[in-house]
Amino acid sequence: MPLHRIFHPPGAFSVAEKTSLSERITKLYTNRGLPAFYVVILFTPIEKDSFFVGGQSTDKFIRIVVQHLARQLPNDQRKAEFSEKYEEAIAPFIKDKGYDWEVHVEEVPPEMWRENGLIPPIKFPEIEKEWARLNKPIPY
Amino acid sequence: MPLHRIFHPPGAFSVAEKTSLSERITKLYTNRGLPAFYVVILFTPIEKDSFFVGGQSTDKFIRIVVQHLARQLPNDQRKAEFSEKYEEAIAPFIKDKGYDWEVHVEEVPPEMWRENGLIPPIKFPEIEKEWARLNKPIPY
Amino acid sequence: MPLHRIFHPPGAFSVAEKTSLSERITKLYTNRGLPAFYVVILFTPIEKDSFFVGGQSTDKFIRIVVQHLARQLPNDQRKAEFSEKYEEAIAPFIKDKGYDWEVHVEEVPPEMWRENGLIPPIKFPEIEKEWARLNKPIPY
Repeated sequence: MPLHRIFHPPGAFSVAEKTSLSERITKLYTNRGLPAFYVVILFTPIEKDSFFVGGQSTDKFIRIVVQHLARQLPNDQRKAEFSEKYEEAIAPFIKDKGYDWEVHVEEVPPEMWRENGLIPPIKFPEIEKEWARLNKPIPY
Repeated sequence: MPLHRIFHPPGAFSVAEKTSLSERITKLYTNRGLPAFYVVILFTPIEKDSFFVGGQSTDKFIRIVVQHLARQLPNDQRKAEFSEKYEEAIAPFIKDKGYDWEVHVEEVPPEMWRENGLIPPIKFPEIEKEWARLNKPIPY
Repeated sequence: MPLHRIFHPPGAFSVAEKTSLSERITKLYTNRGLPAFYVVILFTPIEKDSFFVGGQSTDKFIRIVVQHLARQLPNDQRKAEFSEKYEEAIAPFIKDKGYDWEVHVEEVPPEMWRENGLIPPIKFPEIEKEWARLNKPIPY
């Protein structure tokens, strides 16, 4: 569900850092009861001569695009809270290492979303819990 | 129009499989009369140590992001039907090979969509047919 | 803010061309007073055997996905004008070199958009001017 695409300079993260950053991001969702496997994070290295900010090539910038499907945050306050928590989660690997960065989160309607071909049980909290417990989608 | 981004483990698909999968996806649209060239499919290999699902690195997962521009499906039933057909189209290359996978389809308003700089003839079925017949955009 | 993802055949652009194209795109926004650093452009080479248009592998096609956050264009005429200017900006590097291409622009609500963790001053023109003047985000 949440899809996180992280565009970064090739050397920005070690494998250990990518793992740790992924764990921190995943926890933002599992803390709310979502199945861990919903959280997909794709690290995409972009070479300096293909990464432009303000018309200039850079290896000091990280751009993150997040898409939410399982939950639409209902109002501006909740959205602001999410952004705040997200910034805390990523700070040790981005801000604290001296990068500039930009994040945006999109909310995508879930009607054409499928996990292993199954309709995610957004409207069936008990089944969603079961998916979370097993950490995989099962027919219902 | 439909843009399909397929994020996959580097070795997931042979060139023949990518071709065949692309043909099957393309037919979903040409069957409805859309020009074949509207259908763009980008395969993006993601290394195992950059592909995280549920906080864990994986080479067993395929994530597909689809964007529709030429047609907005008018109701939930039609959307569900599309998802079903899409799952059938991709199953031989993903489900049947033992991967886990996730798909979502987004519907993007077409006002700022251009093909070779031309406004696609969404509102002009006769011209769209001509684009489909020639399989290229021509001024009108 | 504006995020431009340019999917292109590996050899399509020299570094000088990528720089020049990025400068031309960036000017579309700085001409309107937006901070230059808002404009992020990611060039993503896609190998011929991973780039399919109409079910066929190609190295003659360029696909551009643009996302706007800081400004939603208020009506269809303004959107059409933007698309026209965009096409002019990219033509020397795409149309004039004989590629086929497709562009679409999406407008994403800005509530969960952050620059270096800060809420961009969309509603504070004086602060936005200051960000533009300094070409970096500063707390306010």
